[in-house]
Amino acid sequence: MSDTTTQSTPRPPGRPRSARADESIIDAVLDFLAEGTTVEALSMEAVASRAGVGKATVYRRWPHKEALLLDALSTLKQPLQVPPGLSVRSDLVILMEQSWDARDSRAGRIMPCLIPELQRNGPLRTQFIALIDARRDVVRDVLRRGIVTGELRSDIDVELALILLSGPMFLTLIGNAPNVEPDGLAERVVDAVLRGIAT
Amino acid sequence: MSDTTTQSTPRPPGRPRSARADESIIDAVLDFLAEGTTVEALSMEAVASRAGVGKATVYRRWPHKEALLLDALSTLKQPLQVPPGLSVRSDLVILMEQSWDARDSRAGRIMPCLIPELQRNGPLRTQFIALIDARRDVVRDVLRRGIVTGELRSDIDVELALILLSGPMFLTLIGNAPNVEPDGLAERVVDAVLRGIAT
Repeated sequence: MSDTTTQSTPRPPGRPRSARADESIIDAVLDFLAEGTTVEALSMEAVASRAGVGKATVYRRWPHKEALLLDALSTLKQPLQVPPGLSVRSDLVILMEQSWDARDSRAGRIMPCLIPELQRNGPLRTQFIALIDARRDVVRDVLRRGIVTGELRSDIDVELALILLSGPMFLTLIGNAPNVEPDGLAERVVDAVLRGIAT
Repeated sequence: MSDTTTQSTPRPPGRPRSARADESIIDAVLDFLAEGTTVEALSMEAVASRAGVGKATVYRRWPHKEALLLDALSTLKQPLQVPPGLSVRSDLVILMEQSWDARDSRAGRIMPCLIPELQRNGPLRTQFIALIDARRDVVRDVLRRGIVTGELRSDIDVELALILLSGPMFLTLIGNAPNVEPDGLAERVVDAVLRGIAT
């Protein structure tokens, strides 16, 4: 889509042209990353071209690639929905399923390598980790509530419990656990982490 | 180091020049990967140049990049040492520490993105997963022994238990768990996975 095409499209009510351009630009970034373009290789020019807008449109909104990347990644890392609070087990299953259900999406293809890739980019890496951390706050709250209600042991390390839950799902997501059945994984992981494997 | 330099270096006893060239070539591949060069971007020419050998030397030994990559990755994924077999807990701690201790190495910088990166390369991906799986066999044996001795519950899924152990360590390794203390992590993960977090 070229700038001209964009301008000749009738404007949908309530969505100004600039918002639509922003969306196309963000979409173009996510498409490139999902296809395997590295953060380093991604260029503002290629993004503009794929979004069907002029380079100036991109730079007017995002002065540099880091700002654009962070906004694009934010759209994939919305805060998790707060679960209903019936039991710690059912809340954790609901939360783990929320992220697991995204595995076939663009997010599932983009996320795996992103943090290692950002290792050479300090500020962007810090901001991206802050995005992930905001999602984890919802899980932290459920774990802390479980300690208060006595469903969880009082001596657990909440930060360790978080990665006990998400680590196995992440390994499966990136294809590192070919012998693990992916269907219903969220529930099996939650039960295994809650009960442990020892007698 | 150029071909000439290599040839003029006195040959150490028992290590023929071709073996030394092979090592330099493998080393060059691992250096590139550790620096963030993607599998796709890696070129046989650049490898030859960095190893200080001619292109023909590389191609004589490895007819294509995939063969060279697989040999290079094999050197990072040696089978784990079989632990002494005192208790399942102590064996698992020893095994998890073996991989954890490699975190500051070139392997730690190369591994995180590799499987997602290989997604577009079917045969190489399958062979690389086989390398990882051979290492996991040592852990599987310990888990199965634990079921027989009664240290582990008889209804556990060994494949799931494997990733319950390695998942949290992997997330920490790639920088995805900034609030988790990395010192002594192997032991804390093993204990949490054995005992579970529920009351």
